[in-house]
Amino acid sequence: MLNRVRSAVAHLVSSGGAPPPRPKSPDLSNAPSAQPAVPPEASKSPPVRAGSGSSAPAKTVEARTSFSRPTFLQLSPGGLRRADDHAGRAVQSPPNTGRRLPWSTGYAEVINAGKSRHNEDQACCEVVYVEGRRSISGVPREPSQGQGLCFYYWGLFDGHAGGGAAEMASRLLHRHIREQLKDLVEILQDPSPPPLCLPSTPGAPGSSDPSHLVGPQSCWSSQKEVTHESLVVGAIENAFQFMDEQMARERHGHQVEGGCCALVVVYLLGKVYVANAGDSRAIIVRNGEVIPMSREFTPETERQRLQLLGFLKPELLGGEFTHLEFPRRIQPKELGQRMLYRDQNMTGWAYKKIELEDLRFPLVCGEGKKARVMATIGVTRGLGDHNLKVCSSTLPIKPFLSCFPEVRVYDLTQYEHCPDDVLVLGTDGLWDVTSDCEVAATVDRVLSAYEPNDPSRYTALAQALVLGARGTPRDRGWRLPNNKLGSGDDISVFVIPLGGPGSYS
Amino acid sequence: MLNRVRSAVAHLVSSGGAPPPRPKSPDLSNAPSAQPAVPPEASKSPPVRAGSGSSAPAKTVEARTSFSRPTFLQLSPGGLRRADDHAGRAVQSPPNTGRRLPWSTGYAEVINAGKSRHNEDQACCEVVYVEGRRSISGVPREPSQGQGLCFYYWGLFDGHAGGGAAEMASRLLHRHIREQLKDLVEILQDPSPPPLCLPSTPGAPGSSDPSHLVGPQSCWSSQKEVTHESLVVGAIENAFQFMDEQMARERHGHQVEGGCCALVVVYLLGKVYVANAGDSRAIIVRNGEVIPMSREFTPETERQRLQLLGFLKPELLGGEFTHLEFPRRIQPKELGQRMLYRDQNMTGWAYKKIELEDLRFPLVCGEGKKARVMATIGVTRGLGDHNLKVCSSTLPIKPFLSCFPEVRVYDLTQYEHCPDDVLVLGTDGLWDVTSDCEVAATVDRVLSAYEPNDPSRYTALAQALVLGARGTPRDRGWRLPNNKLGSGDDISVFVIPLGGPGSYS
Repeated sequence: MLNRVRSAVAHLVSSGGAPPPRPKSPDLSNAPSAQPAVPPEASKSPPVRAGSGSSAPAKTVEARTSFSRPTFLQLSPGGLRRADDHAGRAVQSPPNTGRRLPWSTGYAEVINAGKSRHNEDQACCEVVYVEGRRSISGVPREPSQGQGLCFYYWGLFDGHAGGGAAEMASRLLHRHIREQLKDLVEILQDPSPPPLCLPSTPGAPGSSDPSHLVGPQSCWSSQKEVTHESLVVGAIENAFQFMDEQMARERHGHQVEGGCCALVVVYLLGKVYVANAGDSRAIIVRNGEVIPMSREFTPETERQRLQLLGFLKPELLGGEFTHLEFPRRIQPKELGQRMLYRDQNMTGWAYKKIELEDLRFPLVCGEGKKARVMATIGVTRGLGDHNLKVCSSTLPIKPFLSCFPEVRVYDLTQYEHCPDDVLVLGTDGLWDVTSDCEVAATVDRVLSAYEPNDPSRYTALAQALVLGARGTPRDRGWRLPNNKLGSGDDISVFVIPLGGPGSYS
Repeated sequence: MLNRVRSAVAHLVSSGGAPPPRPKSPDLSNAPSAQPAVPPEASKSPPVRAGSGSSAPAKTVEARTSFSRPTFLQLSPGGLRRADDHAGRAVQSPPNTGRRLPWSTGYAEVINAGKSRHNEDQACCEVVYVEGRRSISGVPREPSQGQGLCFYYWGLFDGHAGGGAAEMASRLLHRHIREQLKDLVEILQDPSPPPLCLPSTPGAPGSSDPSHLVGPQSCWSSQKEVTHESLVVGAIENAFQFMDEQMARERHGHQVEGGCCALVVVYLLGKVYVANAGDSRAIIVRNGEVIPMSREFTPETERQRLQLLGFLKPELLGGEFTHLEFPRRIQPKELGQRMLYRDQNMTGWAYKKIELEDLRFPLVCGEGKKARVMATIGVTRGLGDHNLKVCSSTLPIKPFLSCFPEVRVYDLTQYEHCPDDVLVLGTDGLWDVTSDCEVAATVDRVLSAYEPNDPSRYTALAQALVLGARGTPRDRGWRLPNNKLGSGDDISVFVIPLGGPGSYS
């Protein structure tokens, strides 16, 4: 997330402000987990203070509690220092010696070239067990492993304006998903269509009688069919919302600074759910072909949603912004002339006479990576950002940001996958300088150099992708082989093999 | 538009209320047109009163001024009566003897099987000349044909709850498009990028100086590139809005009853612009393959837009509706239980505890052709409907309807078309019973039976499509060869050949 928030990043870097302490969740911090999100040793690690900018690693060490890298990297204090070195930009991956990630997932990351003090990307990879909250038949069940559900989970979180939100999301979002799935444990394992209505309390009289639950139809002639798949989608969507609400609640006490894009994969009962809120990206490379599994949410792609909101709720614009889009800033002396504009309902452009309120700054402006909402932020979905204000103003930006992901579903059982078929997740540091097709070419090149049953091939691939996007230091910058600039952003990549889920783990 | 508005249609049919007199447009009624939208003889035609339902043609004749069919059908009074006969449902096409439609366009229509008194579809096909309003250089131009622009225009308007809106749109929408294009005549013919800013008045000092017009950049580092194509899209979008506003202004004086879907094609400078607001559909059949050129706007496809509006502006729900979606109506006795729901941000479903306000009727309910907004209307975009209220209520529905079309652009110059390549426009009467592929098969079957240079083949194709959707009377209904019910709706079809624009006209 390079240069995507104008004010806060600069502030954080220049003031040397430490990222916030680790937030606690009253809802979820005590919830059991198959694998602790933060192992005890992480908080015991000697805190380090990394160098900022592209200077040599800093030598000072001060008390810090929350800066961390994903626990599966198993970084020693020295390793943590090296991972935090903007000058060397060493690529980090889980050690070959330790426990492999589920499905032999490959992972690699590299810190930015100095745009923020620490790597603001975070990652999480877990196997999560969901115990049913109760029986839908109304009879309380014995808590036993056999009746629960497992899901596999991968998350990439690209932070901006501080690392707090990304760190919190990487620790807690999968727990929110687990919470949402608790009600569905029995329903998802029952092949019959989900009940439309559930009893309020287990064992309530009559409430488990299906004929009562369905009830007579009023003026609707039929009831909608709701699929199991759409229940999982709804659970993931609501988990994102609860995660965001938790950040809002705890932002004062725990200083959940900044916000983050979130790209999450859930594998459950044969299906892969890819949920994206932000500008990270997921693609499947299958038999050499690219299948997009997400789209990016930016001021350009969400222009009409943003403008509609500004149009319907002009108070959110605070008299400082106009919901109309113009192709460039209007000069006061142009008042009365006619300028091209787009309103919230338009995809084309037309001319309008410039009036006084058109001189306000447009809610959405700029193009490509420079596009901004309220001249401030370059992504329009994600978690956090509850404190984000317009530069030199008290106007909050959060109302224009959405925490809801778009969820795409891929049925793993519909296609026989080979070991070279992979799902690649990357933060925008990867995609800013690498096209989908280039990733597919790297998949082919790297995987064909390894035996199909060598589980280390996916980490090698993730490393190759990160290195290919970072480049090498040359001519006062990080450069790609074609001499173009590499990505100076944090870069994080998961490579999830689709060819044999579970067979490597 | 069969059964898509619950209350008003029934009222109109049962009360025998006459459609409104022809509305006048203060803005546009005096504007010159290459071909008068309504030839003088139309208003002189002996008015007829057609039979309603599936009974024999009515014999009574009463004074009516506005019921009409497209002028290019050149219907005699007797022909008009036959076109209005619900029992015979004779397919209507332009006569072979008269002037052909531009591009040898094929057209056919048939009245409904009795669901409304008259055929509420309307159609328009015109060649429209646009004279530039002024020179962008600031020097007033001589009005001369050579400096203007021509566009070809086809429109299908599927009325509901009365024929007034469809009739008005068929007479005036292309004039609104012409009005919007007047400013663009010079710009569109100039290969350089459109100016971002125009002088307020022709010849104003300094206003034609491009360096002044562009001006220095403020905090935006670059200005957006706006294409000629996007100006035409913007012109069409705004024309729809002005048409809708004119209907709002004139609805009291001229009784512009009901509303209509609008599907419009503009051919201008090598490109085909397909603008759709409603549930009509356009497809291109090229080399036997189907290219969708529109999508339908219904309570199902626009659920999230509608829910968002109800969520942001709850006053529009009048305390009668909830913006949440439920898979069926909730019973009062289910209060406190947990029901599946979808909120405006969700594509999946989740359970929520039923509260008192969830007992309100959902803003969006039903499925497929039975989906409704506020239990009333089954399309969510179109023109008119300014008087439409929720059944037995004063709550207006118009705020939830959008008059803005989605515009898709097809570049005719990018592909060498053969005489069998066509653009097919149809109201939902066609598409309710005919798939895209079936249309493509009919295109192949009918056109191959005619010489490629026989201009009557496109009308034969339009007739075949309409007949195929209507079926034949059998077993107390109109039935297709497979014995399924044919469409009892009004059916209208344009077939526009792409293989030789202008070569037949």
